[in-house]
Amino acid sequence: MEVRVEKDFLGEVQIPDAAYYGVQSVRARDNFPITGYKVDETLIRAVGYVKKAAVMANAELGQLDKKLAEAIKQAAEEVIAGKFNDQFIVDPIQGGAGTSFNMNANEVIANRALEILGEEKGDYSIVSPNSHVNMAQSTNDVFPTAVNIALIDRLHGLAEKLADLVEAFKSKSQEFDHVIKMGRTHLQDAVPIRLGQEFIGYYSVMQRDLERISSSMKGLRSVNMGGTSVGTGLNALPEYTEKVVEYLTDLTGFEIKSSESLIDATQNTDVYTEVSSMLKIHALNISKIANDLRLMSSGPTAGFGEINLPARQSGSSIMPGKVNPVICEVINQIAYQVVGNDTTIGMAAENGQLELNVMKPVLVFNLLESISILENGLRIFREYAIEGMTANIEHCRNMVERSISLVTAINPYVGYEKATEVARIALETNRPIREICIDNGILTEAEVDMILDLNNLTSPGIAGKDKVYAGK
Amino acid sequence: MEVRVEKDFLGEVQIPDAAYYGVQSVRARDNFPITGYKVDETLIRAVGYVKKAAVMANAELGQLDKKLAEAIKQAAEEVIAGKFNDQFIVDPIQGGAGTSFNMNANEVIANRALEILGEEKGDYSIVSPNSHVNMAQSTNDVFPTAVNIALIDRLHGLAEKLADLVEAFKSKSQEFDHVIKMGRTHLQDAVPIRLGQEFIGYYSVMQRDLERISSSMKGLRSVNMGGTSVGTGLNALPEYTEKVVEYLTDLTGFEIKSSESLIDATQNTDVYTEVSSMLKIHALNISKIANDLRLMSSGPTAGFGEINLPARQSGSSIMPGKVNPVICEVINQIAYQVVGNDTTIGMAAENGQLELNVMKPVLVFNLLESISILENGLRIFREYAIEGMTANIEHCRNMVERSISLVTAINPYVGYEKATEVARIALETNRPIREICIDNGILTEAEVDMILDLNNLTSPGIAGKDKVYAGK
Amino acid sequence: MEVRVEKDFLGEVQIPDAAYYGVQSVRARDNFPITGYKVDETLIRAVGYVKKAAVMANAELGQLDKKLAEAIKQAAEEVIAGKFNDQFIVDPIQGGAGTSFNMNANEVIANRALEILGEEKGDYSIVSPNSHVNMAQSTNDVFPTAVNIALIDRLHGLAEKLADLVEAFKSKSQEFDHVIKMGRTHLQDAVPIRLGQEFIGYYSVMQRDLERISSSMKGLRSVNMGGTSVGTGLNALPEYTEKVVEYLTDLTGFEIKSSESLIDATQNTDVYTEVSSMLKIHALNISKIANDLRLMSSGPTAGFGEINLPARQSGSSIMPGKVNPVICEVINQIAYQVVGNDTTIGMAAENGQLELNVMKPVLVFNLLESISILENGLRIFREYAIEGMTANIEHCRNMVERSISLVTAINPYVGYEKATEVARIALETNRPIREICIDNGILTEAEVDMILDLNNLTSPGIAGKDKVYAGK
Amino acid sequence: MEVRVEKDFLGEVQIPDAAYYGVQSVRARDNFPITGYKVDETLIRAVGYVKKAAVMANAELGQLDKKLAEAIKQAAEEVIAGKFNDQFIVDPIQGGAGTSFNMNANEVIANRALEILGEEKGDYSIVSPNSHVNMAQSTNDVFPTAVNIALIDRLHGLAEKLADLVEAFKSKSQEFDHVIKMGRTHLQDAVPIRLGQEFIGYYSVMQRDLERISSSMKGLRSVNMGGTSVGTGLNALPEYTEKVVEYLTDLTGFEIKSSESLIDATQNTDVYTEVSSMLKIHALNISKIANDLRLMSSGPTAGFGEINLPARQSGSSIMPGKVNPVICEVINQIAYQVVGNDTTIGMAAENGQLELNVMKPVLVFNLLESISILENGLRIFREYAIEGMTANIEHCRNMVERSISLVTAINPYVGYEKATEVARIALETNRPIREICIDNGILTEAEVDMILDLNNLTSPGIAGKDKVYAGK
Repeated sequence: MEVRVEKDFLGEVQIPDAAYYGVQSVRARDNFPITGYKVDETLIRAVGYVKKAAVMANAELGQLDKKLAEAIKQAAEEVIAGKFNDQFIVDPIQGGAGTSFNMNANEVIANRALEILGEEKGDYSIVSPNSHVNMAQSTNDVFPTAVNIALIDRLHGLAEKLADLVEAFKSKSQEFDHVIKMGRTHLQDAVPIRLGQEFIGYYSVMQRDLERISSSMKGLRSVNMGGTSVGTGLNALPEYTEKVVEYLTDLTGFEIKSSESLIDATQNTDVYTEVSSMLKIHALNISKIANDLRLMSSGPTAGFGEINLPARQSGSSIMPGKVNPVICEVINQIAYQVVGNDTTIGMAAENGQLELNVMKPVLVFNLLESISILENGLRIFREYAIEGMTANIEHCRNMVERSISLVTAINPYVGYEKATEVARIALETNRPIREICIDNGILTEAEVDMILDLNNLTSPGIAGKDKVYAGK
Repeated sequence: MEVRVEKDFLGEVQIPDAAYYGVQSVRARDNFPITGYKVDETLIRAVGYVKKAAVMANAELGQLDKKLAEAIKQAAEEVIAGKFNDQFIVDPIQGGAGTSFNMNANEVIANRALEILGEEKGDYSIVSPNSHVNMAQSTNDVFPTAVNIALIDRLHGLAEKLADLVEAFKSKSQEFDHVIKMGRTHLQDAVPIRLGQEFIGYYSVMQRDLERISSSMKGLRSVNMGGTSVGTGLNALPEYTEKVVEYLTDLTGFEIKSSESLIDATQNTDVYTEVSSMLKIHALNISKIANDLRLMSSGPTAGFGEINLPARQSGSSIMPGKVNPVICEVINQIAYQVVGNDTTIGMAAENGQLELNVMKPVLVFNLLESISILENGLRIFREYAIEGMTANIEHCRNMVERSISLVTAINPYVGYEKATEVARIALETNRPIREICIDNGILTEAEVDMILDLNNLTSPGIAGKDKVYAGK
Repeated sequence: MEVRVEKDFLGEVQIPDAAYYGVQSVRARDNFPITGYKVDETLIRAVGYVKKAAVMANAELGQLDKKLAEAIKQAAEEVIAGKFNDQFIVDPIQGGAGTSFNMNANEVIANRALEILGEEKGDYSIVSPNSHVNMAQSTNDVFPTAVNIALIDRLHGLAEKLADLVEAFKSKSQEFDHVIKMGRTHLQDAVPIRLGQEFIGYYSVMQRDLERISSSMKGLRSVNMGGTSVGTGLNALPEYTEKVVEYLTDLTGFEIKSSESLIDATQNTDVYTEVSSMLKIHALNISKIANDLRLMSSGPTAGFGEINLPARQSGSSIMPGKVNPVICEVINQIAYQVVGNDTTIGMAAENGQLELNVMKPVLVFNLLESISILENGLRIFREYAIEGMTANIEHCRNMVERSISLVTAINPYVGYEKATEVARIALETNRPIREICIDNGILTEAEVDMILDLNNLTSPGIAGKDKVYAGK
Repeated sequence: MEVRVEKDFLGEVQIPDAAYYGVQSVRARDNFPITGYKVDETLIRAVGYVKKAAVMANAELGQLDKKLAEAIKQAAEEVIAGKFNDQFIVDPIQGGAGTSFNMNANEVIANRALEILGEEKGDYSIVSPNSHVNMAQSTNDVFPTAVNIALIDRLHGLAEKLADLVEAFKSKSQEFDHVIKMGRTHLQDAVPIRLGQEFIGYYSVMQRDLERISSSMKGLRSVNMGGTSVGTGLNALPEYTEKVVEYLTDLTGFEIKSSESLIDATQNTDVYTEVSSMLKIHALNISKIANDLRLMSSGPTAGFGEINLPARQSGSSIMPGKVNPVICEVINQIAYQVVGNDTTIGMAAENGQLELNVMKPVLVFNLLESISILENGLRIFREYAIEGMTANIEHCRNMVERSISLVTAINPYVGYEKATEVARIALETNRPIREICIDNGILTEAEVDMILDLNNLTSPGIAGKDKVYAGK
């Protein structure tokens, strides 16, 4: 293998000549052999945008030689295009608050620029990763800015999938609007409800999740470019700070703006904990829905048996014909992962110190993972579980008709205390509510017909309300 | 002790005759001897509002006898006034999704109403806790509605304290605006910053916390009154559902409205996890600030020694004269408690099933505790730590002047690589940057004077920017 | 109110003359108005033991005047007896790593000793809270030592309740040994199991929890008394360090010993995170059991309906006759609280710094709360839910007989692939497995009788194993 | 691409002919495109052991044709050898409790066995993934058994790295035994300590972590092989259950044994939460140490400056010469990841239901990740941070000598109250303790020399103990 030699204050390092990364990337790769995972590709694209915007601003302000600037800009564009993804060799969990990732980007871009200029890779006296590619920048503004852009990008994707899911639940709420079933509280029979009504509950909460996730993007649009090392902006011209966010807005299509206080934006991570919180809330909500679907589809014989989830694969290596609610199960697991990630993110956030939070790499890794697995999960949840779901209409109605829980409806006519007595008799004798009421002269046959009409029981109100008991 | 006998389907129970609670309260007290804590008083007041609004709506709609309604209303008002706080005997952590708390309220109000009517306590055939006090209600709408009202109430209090803290930080940012000190990243000397700038970081993030907490109240204003058992509204007239939120708005002064879907609002708890998330984000942020203040006040000899927190108490039982940052420390501990509470709340939220989340009592207990301890903490943080804080101005400046970290400022003139060399020499020889630059002919004396002017170093920009190196 | 004046370096404070606490307690009470809860009484008793052991050791070594020592000792005994619980006025969540609590104890004991000696309360020149009561001690050894003793005490109580629960589950496993029911995986019908077998699962895991909790006590027996401020033992005689643990062993009956490294024991909190972990593991396990019981008792009509939990109270304010699994529900909530507490404890543990963990108060508060609510919960779980539980034997058997899941048993005879086909036919035609096998010539009637004998299906093995298919 | 067609109850699927996986693996891959990560290779090796042990037991008991058994055994060995790692195509986070992973293994082994036998891949009538490879097995015993074996394997590796770290800390505690420095509590100067003593604290707690991690392996040695679907052992001969653990012991070298109750072992996950807890405790402890080292190495000018961590890479893209404690920082981040993983694991554990915990895949994924990143981190922590650390001896001593905190040592001679007065004067006048004591006639010069001898101050005891004040 052809190699070149690069050096830093620690000494010399041999780099494969074909490589675009340099000495600092290699140091970092060797220092942090932690997860073995790759840095998220959206984040690589995002740092490309940042580098491109910076070089354009520096060039426009005459801080950087034109030809040099052109070469750096082209290299950054190639990073954006994903051409050098394999040259990002640092672990996503790394010490140093993202310096290794930023320097990896700087080195790749510098070496590619050198190549474009017809120079030797590694000749940093011509194109310097620090002085030129990183000009007027610090990891402390580059990394969070790139992260913000990557997050906005990924959250758009997530929001899209979630919007699709909302629609799927909405559509099911209409399809199932006529399916009368037992409503349950405490897992105990309560009063009737329509399956479609339950799906209103589902799409409503998913809709709020969507709004929360969307609104959490707002904070991400404020970036601290120009703050450099600690947010004071040392070595960055105020005009640069203005220009760089304009270029970022142009390049990304997101409305990027400069934080009101760059110092604040450099040291605080609340925009990230806010995003993570929204993801966690969503995870808890969707996990509850997945649990509900698993409960309702329990059976086929010894369970609730109210709905059927589409069969997706054999459920057992030993039990023939068994089919399990595997898609719902993976949604639960995704949710637990997101909640755990939020714990990590919270600890990382709390451990910022003074001018910087150096725990950002693990924070960002978890945030991107959470978005990614949720986005993947939402799609399969909708496609493989929700859209093809069917209801066991007869069985649902059957259970309502056999239940003594209908007794609640007679409350307004006879009072809670007498209704309790009717319930007691029903439970003991296994006779229908209807019969007990009539036989004991509590209500007339006509009254019972009116009160226990299943079609009315799932709508607000009191049948024949002029007849109500209470207070008379 | 005089007793009366009450009974339910499980048998008879003796109740002290002086007591306003009844058989169901006693069952619950005995079933749940868990924490020994008392139910939050704001929540008791809030359930009083709910009961008063409900009885007024029922009376207006002619569902309840006027005289009965008047007595119930008066009793509810007395609950609101806190007269019966000691009659709420159920543990805040209880099985049953709040039924025990709701029945405790129903029984207290029924018995007080009986007393007002000149009747015997316990004669529920005249005033029934269920049929009359709880008319058109279910725990499943009463409890969350009361919780929402209590939370709005308490969050207002918290927001007030937080707004005061924001002001205190703001004021300090001005007071300390001229204090130049070493900015640190990774706990390592970075570049100079002004102490006042750091406080801009503090008030900015606290201001965002305030906005987040305020905005999380919005969801709480939607309540599910009228949904009764599972949100379908069985036994509640649609007119009642409308009226009851109007009365609640009148009584509380909060703009209470009916949820778009009462079913959704009955089964989902995302408004609570949202509030808890906002509290958690705030806790993480304020804990970071407390950590910073502890770091900056470390010493007096062997620490950073940049600021002095007001002495509040002897710091040690053995070390004379020791004073510790105890207020900051308790802020950290409050933060950890709030984060732990959020974990509990998350698990409780995820474990809702179908039409109801029966884990609400523990969820609500933690939510109210989080608000309460934060509110208490914010006040003492401001009064006992922030307002009286002073800076060690000379020492701060001293450390900046002695530091080699100023080398960053020469980057634009000499490039990162040469600046690194200067830094290396400075570290090895312990000579000032200034001297090395001049002696080695790197910069002229005039240039160095301009570049290393401490007053400029904390502002954005590059001194004498026409002279910059890079790209040449 | 009669008052006396005490002073410290911050100035004078008026103390009610009847009070035994002093100026430092008052400072702390005013500095930390956080939770409003009281310090755990076991912890007060434990600090009494520590103070008594210390004064005895100091007296024995001639460091303390005999008469003074006698008075202090008597005062400590009265603290142990609980006579001064109301004099402990500091909040359990407090800044200062427990100094306020320790000083509260020192002041109460000093003032009571003064009283015993016929002197005025507050005359600390005669009996000094610091020099005499706290002699050779620091909060940094007193507080953790008291905590360890309190924890051992409370864990014994918890272990007792857990042992009782294990027995209750054991007894139920025998009572239910003959109840054949559907075993479920993924909430889907799997293969038959006996209800008693499930209870073996329950008592086995509870037994392991008991062992884990018991074994976590071991580390608590090592204390850092004599380490004083940072564990180096400044101002404590080595003989004192030896004596004090001997006295502690005598007084408590626990085998208290001196940590191998007092420095280690002063700065690390892993014995506490270990206890909390054991409690959390237990909480997760018992919550799973509570969930199972809620599932199995779901119904009465539209649920699993396999078991009946004892009715403990009315389940609803609106639904007559409804009874909910409230005891199981409170067990779940206790579990979530314990898990949340573990989060808090973990964050507090991680934030120890250098020679001391100053976050101990919140850590200890949560640890004691976790033990307390678990202990309370275990008792009611056993008494109110487990012991009186009954099984719906017929219904359980019925569901097994109607299920197609029995098809798994024919695997060894026909292979998984053919068995899958049988299952498919059964599901589509709703015909019994038995019939399909015989009609299609897959198995003879005699074979089916043997294979599907319900009594054999819950035991290991293959009926008629010489006939098995596979590999032929 | 050459393909073959396989089918299941859902229809036909085209499989690349070169592939060893089959239709069920493909279904699962397509159902669960969640993380994009690969299943842990240790887990693949472990399932190979399980399959090999099972086929050997089945063959020995005459349940499986010899030739078939030989081919399956050889295929399993090749899985163990890692030859088919790329054929494991299912995502580590998957619905179905590991069925997809187990079937992936079954299909790879069946197809390889077919190949060995000279048959066509996909001809499952000859070698069936279910009937033959999975004979007498269920995912519900295979998956946890493989997981246990993988965990034992990986924990051995972790324990080794931790033992090395303990040794490194031990060695440093000797190297630094003579370095006197300021001990700090609350980040405030307390009393002197030796740097070596602090490292005793570090190795002691790491040693306990090692013991905890080692002891958590014990539970993993009990496996539920033979329990099949729900632990009752349907379709598994009792002799098989015995044999299979013997073979597993032989193959792995671990002392694998059969769980006392296979039902218990199938439904409970407490052995996993126990392992995770031990990892979490370790993470919290090591994070505290990393924090300490970052504090002690803070500077170089404006920090504690007590120790120097080896420089590992440039610390900044903008600040020349800056070096950061990046290895410690990544240890913190690993710790936060492990704590977050424990949250996920806890939620997964709690959500087991009845006979099985279907959330195991996410639980296992997190457990293996935690072990892996800790193992990686421990090595670099020792090699890159601990072993090359040096102390700034002069500076450490200097700070002790300048500190007023030495006043604690005069307590036993003058009492806490008078010592406080001395401290106050020292703080106000900035004069040394020594001088104040002599000038004010509090102590003689000789007494001060004896009492404040730095060499004695870090050892237990009271200099000249016959002279002590208290009690006089």
